[in-house]
Amino acid sequence: MKLNPGDNVAVVGNASTLEVGAEVFPGLFALDALKFGQKVALENIKITEEITRYGVCIGYAKTDIKAGSRVSEVNINPPSVENLRNLDLKGIIDFTDEIEVKPFRRQTPFFMGYRNDDGSVGTRNCLAISSSVHCVSGVVKQAVSQIESELLPQYPNVDGVVFLDHAYGCGVAIDADGASVPINTIRNLARNPNFGGQIMLVGLGCEKLRHSMLDIEKADLISLQDSSASGYQAMLSDILRQAEKHLTLLNLRTREKCPLSALTVGVQCGGSDSISGMTANPLVGELSDFIVAQGGSIIFSEITEVRDGAHELLSRCTSLEVKEKLLQEFIWYDDYLQSGGVGHSANTTPGNRAGGISNIVEKAMGSLAKSGRQPIVDIIRAGDSIATKGLNFLAGPASDFISGTLQFAAGANLHIFTTGRGTPYSIDGFPTVKVSSNSELARRWWDLLDFDAGPIIEHGHELVDLRDDLVEKIIAVASGEKTSAEKLGISNSIVLFNPAPIT
Amino acid sequence: MKLNPGDNVAVVGNASTLEVGAEVFPGLFALDALKFGQKVALENIKITEEITRYGVCIGYAKTDIKAGSRVSEVNINPPSVENLRNLDLKGIIDFTDEIEVKPFRRQTPFFMGYRNDDGSVGTRNCLAISSSVHCVSGVVKQAVSQIESELLPQYPNVDGVVFLDHAYGCGVAIDADGASVPINTIRNLARNPNFGGQIMLVGLGCEKLRHSMLDIEKADLISLQDSSASGYQAMLSDILRQAEKHLTLLNLRTREKCPLSALTVGVQCGGSDSISGMTANPLVGELSDFIVAQGGSIIFSEITEVRDGAHELLSRCTSLEVKEKLLQEFIWYDDYLQSGGVGHSANTTPGNRAGGISNIVEKAMGSLAKSGRQPIVDIIRAGDSIATKGLNFLAGPASDFISGTLQFAAGANLHIFTTGRGTPYSIDGFPTVKVSSNSELARRWWDLLDFDAGPIIEHGHELVDLRDDLVEKIIAVASGEKTSAEKLGISNSIVLFNPAPIT
Repeated sequence: MKLNPGDNVAVVGNASTLEVGAEVFPGLFALDALKFGQKVALENIKITEEITRYGVCIGYAKTDIKAGSRVSEVNINPPSVENLRNLDLKGIIDFTDEIEVKPFRRQTPFFMGYRNDDGSVGTRNCLAISSSVHCVSGVVKQAVSQIESELLPQYPNVDGVVFLDHAYGCGVAIDADGASVPINTIRNLARNPNFGGQIMLVGLGCEKLRHSMLDIEKADLISLQDSSASGYQAMLSDILRQAEKHLTLLNLRTREKCPLSALTVGVQCGGSDSISGMTANPLVGELSDFIVAQGGSIIFSEITEVRDGAHELLSRCTSLEVKEKLLQEFIWYDDYLQSGGVGHSANTTPGNRAGGISNIVEKAMGSLAKSGRQPIVDIIRAGDSIATKGLNFLAGPASDFISGTLQFAAGANLHIFTTGRGTPYSIDGFPTVKVSSNSELARRWWDLLDFDAGPIIEHGHELVDLRDDLVEKIIAVASGEKTSAEKLGISNSIVLFNPAPIT
Repeated sequence: MKLNPGDNVAVVGNASTLEVGAEVFPGLFALDALKFGQKVALENIKITEEITRYGVCIGYAKTDIKAGSRVSEVNINPPSVENLRNLDLKGIIDFTDEIEVKPFRRQTPFFMGYRNDDGSVGTRNCLAISSSVHCVSGVVKQAVSQIESELLPQYPNVDGVVFLDHAYGCGVAIDADGASVPINTIRNLARNPNFGGQIMLVGLGCEKLRHSMLDIEKADLISLQDSSASGYQAMLSDILRQAEKHLTLLNLRTREKCPLSALTVGVQCGGSDSISGMTANPLVGELSDFIVAQGGSIIFSEITEVRDGAHELLSRCTSLEVKEKLLQEFIWYDDYLQSGGVGHSANTTPGNRAGGISNIVEKAMGSLAKSGRQPIVDIIRAGDSIATKGLNFLAGPASDFISGTLQFAAGANLHIFTTGRGTPYSIDGFPTVKVSSNSELARRWWDLLDFDAGPIIEHGHELVDLRDDLVEKIIAVASGEKTSAEKLGISNSIVLFNPAPIT
C-alpha cells in the first residue's frame, strides 16, 4: 500500500509474508522476504537520496537500495533534528484549509452522562480517593477493598471506587521547578469529571506535599498520624466514615442526556506497528475531527512522537500565542532530554521496529494522524487541566501510562487507545476504548480490545463508515457500557511525570 | 536531655509541653513553651555563634538567643555545604578506634532461614513475579490473586507471592546513562534471597526493556503478545502454569538453622522526630554494630541525609578505594540535585520540623546514628547488589520507598525502619521491623509497629539491654514470625529510582 503519490516506498498489507520473487506491484518483484507492515522500495533509490512515506521525508538511503528491497532502520539514516530555538514563528504558514467533516449517520447524537455542578460531565460516577504520600498506600488499598465489599452495594448509582495511588509526596525536591508537574497532576486528577466533585484525600501527616498545595480543604483530609484513635482498625474506620459521606452524595446522581460537546476524549497510541498509521490512527483522526465539529474536545499528547511534525503542528495552531506556547514546550522537552544525555529519537521501541516502523520520523507521522485535521486551539502544560474547548495538544511524554494519567488529570472523561501489537492498557475510572490496527490482533485478543480498525485494509472499508461505528461505540461506553478492561476488571496504576529530583 | 558535654542546646524529653517559666534544668527556666523534641538554649548564644548538638555544629544563631529560649529553624542559619570536588582524600584521617561490641545475652544466636544454592539465605520463601513493563500490571495483579486463592494452599511451605510491580520498561530513555539504575534494580530485585532463586518474568513483547537486559532466560519469560493462544483466560493460564512450576520447587524448601552472619539488614528511617536521633536510631546503631560483629551485613543509605556527615563517613571507609567510590557518589548526587535546581537541604520535611529537627545537618547526625560505629567496607551503587560482607553504604536517595526498594534489590533479607511520627511503611516480601522512637507513638499505633525504643528516655533503659530485645525480635522475624504489616496484610509498592528521562 502506497500512502501518497510521491512516496518511493510502500507498506506490505498482506497478513502472510511475501517471499523473495513474489510480485509486490505489477512488474515489481520482492528482492527480500517482506512481512506485514514492512516497507518495500518502489524504485531504485541511490545512496543519500530521500525516502518518502506519508509524502514526507522519513530519512535518507544509507546505501543504494534496489526496487523491491526491504527498507528499514538498517538502510535508512534518519533526518537531522531541527533546532527549534532559532525558529521564527512569524515565518510559519497558517494552515487555513476548511475542514470538511462528514455528518454522523444518525441525527443529533447524544450520550447519557452525569452532569456536574461546574458544567462538566462524567461518563462514570466513581468515588476517588487521592493521597498526599505513598506511605498511606497499603492502608488505603485495604480501605478500598472494604468500601467495595461493605459499602458499595448500598450505593447502586456509584460505579466504583478509584484509588489514585502514586509514589509522590515525600522524598522529593518539592520546591524544584519541575515539582509543579506532579503536584498539579495529583490535584487535577481528583477533579476529573468522572469523580463528581467529591474530593477525598488520605495523608500521613509529616509529608512534604501538604493538602493546601492540592487546594484541598482540611475537612476533606484524613491524616493517619493526626488521628487520636488507637490502632489500625480505627484508621480504617476513619477512612470508611469519610467515604460514606461522599458515597451518599454521589449516589444521588443519575445519568442524563448530554450532547457530544460534553465529551473530552484523550487519544493515544501504544505498541504501534506500521499499519497503525494507516488504519487505527487515521480512524481516530476522523473521530477527532468529528468530536471537535460537535463542539467537544480532543486531547492528544506524546511530545517526543510529534516532535518531527513540529512545523505541521505549529501551522495548525489558531494564534501566535498558541504557537508560542507550543514552541516553548518543544524547547523545554528538548532541554529535558538533553540534560539526560539523550535525544527524542530515544522514543522508538523494539516492537515498533519489528512492526515496520524504522525511526521516530516515521512514527511521528503515524502518531500525528490521531489528531485529525482540525486547528489546535490550545496547549495544555503537563499536569494542568484543559481550558479551551476544541482540539488541544497536551505537552507531555509519550510513555503510555504517564500520557494517559496526564490526559485524565487534564479532565478527559473518555479515552481512546490504538495499538497494533496489543496491550491490556487501562486506567481505573478513565474508560478506555482500545482500537486494534489490524484484524489478526482483534481476533486473537477478542476480549481484551474494544474495536477493530483492521477492516480498513482487510476489506477496504471507508474510514468514514468505520468512524460512525467508532462513534457509536464511544457513545455506548460514555453512557455506561463497560469497556473490555472494565469487564475483565484489569487496570494499571496511574503514573506521574516528575521531572524534578528525588531527595 | 543534653547529648554531648559541649552542646549549647538540649532537647525536651518530656511528653507534656513545658510552659513558659518551667524549670528546664536546675536554674534554667523556659522563656518559650517547649514541646517534646524541641531544642532549648542552655546558655546565652550571640548572633552568628555556633549552635552545637551531638557535639557538632548544626548551624549559626540568626539572632541573639537567650538561655531558655526555643531554638529552631527560625533562629538558626544552617552551615554552608562543603564542595567535595576539591576534597583531598589523602587528608582524611582514618578512624581506627577499636569497636567494642557487647556480647548477646544468649550464646550462639541463630535464626531459622531458607538456604539458597548461591549461599545466600532467605528469611521468607516467596514466589516473585517480575515484569519488564507496566503494561502487564493489570493482568499480573489478577493472576497473583488467582495464584493466591487457587494454587498457594497446595504449597504450604511457600510464604506468599510477590508481584514486583513498577512503572519502568517503556516510554523511557533506555540508553541514557542513568537507565542502568532502574534496570539493575529490576534485575536484582528478582534475585533477592527471599525469592529462592526462582525467576519468573512477565512481559508484553514490544517494550524497550528486553529480558536479556535483566539476564533472564527466555524460558522464564511469559510474553503476552507472543502467546498464540486466544483471549484473556489463555493469558492467565500461561502465567498460572509457569507459577506452578516455580511453586513446586519453592515448596521443597524448609527452614534450617542459620548463623546471624547470614543476615543482611537494610536500615532506614522515615517520619523522624528529634528523639529518633537519641532513641531508635542509636539503638539500631547498636544492632548494626552487633550484626556486623557476628559476620553479617548492614546496608544503610539515604545519601541526602548523610551528606553533611561526609567527612565522618569517609574517615570510616576501610580503604582509599572505598573512600574514592563514596566521594564519587556524593559528587554524582550533588550534580543530580543541582541539575534540578535544588540542594540536598531539600530533604527535610514539615514533619521533621514539627518534630524538632531544624535542618538537614541536625537530621544527618540523627540519621547517621543507625550505621553504628563499624568501618564501612564497601559502597553499593544504586541498583547494584551487595558484594562485600560487613557495613555497606548504599548510595541512593532517602525517599523511603526508593531507599527500601534499593536495599531489597541489593540483597537485604530483613529490614529495620525507625519512625518518630509513625508510618505504615512496608514492602511485600521484605519483612520490616518498625521501631518507634517514642512510647507514646508505640502505644497509639500498637498494632502497626513492631518495637518500642521509647524506654531509652522514658525509663532510662540501657541501649545494650534494649539492643538484645531488638536482636530477639529480629531473630524471630527472620525465622518466620510475621511483622505487624504482614499480620495486617498491608504493603506499599516498590518504587524505582530512575535518574534518566522519560520519553
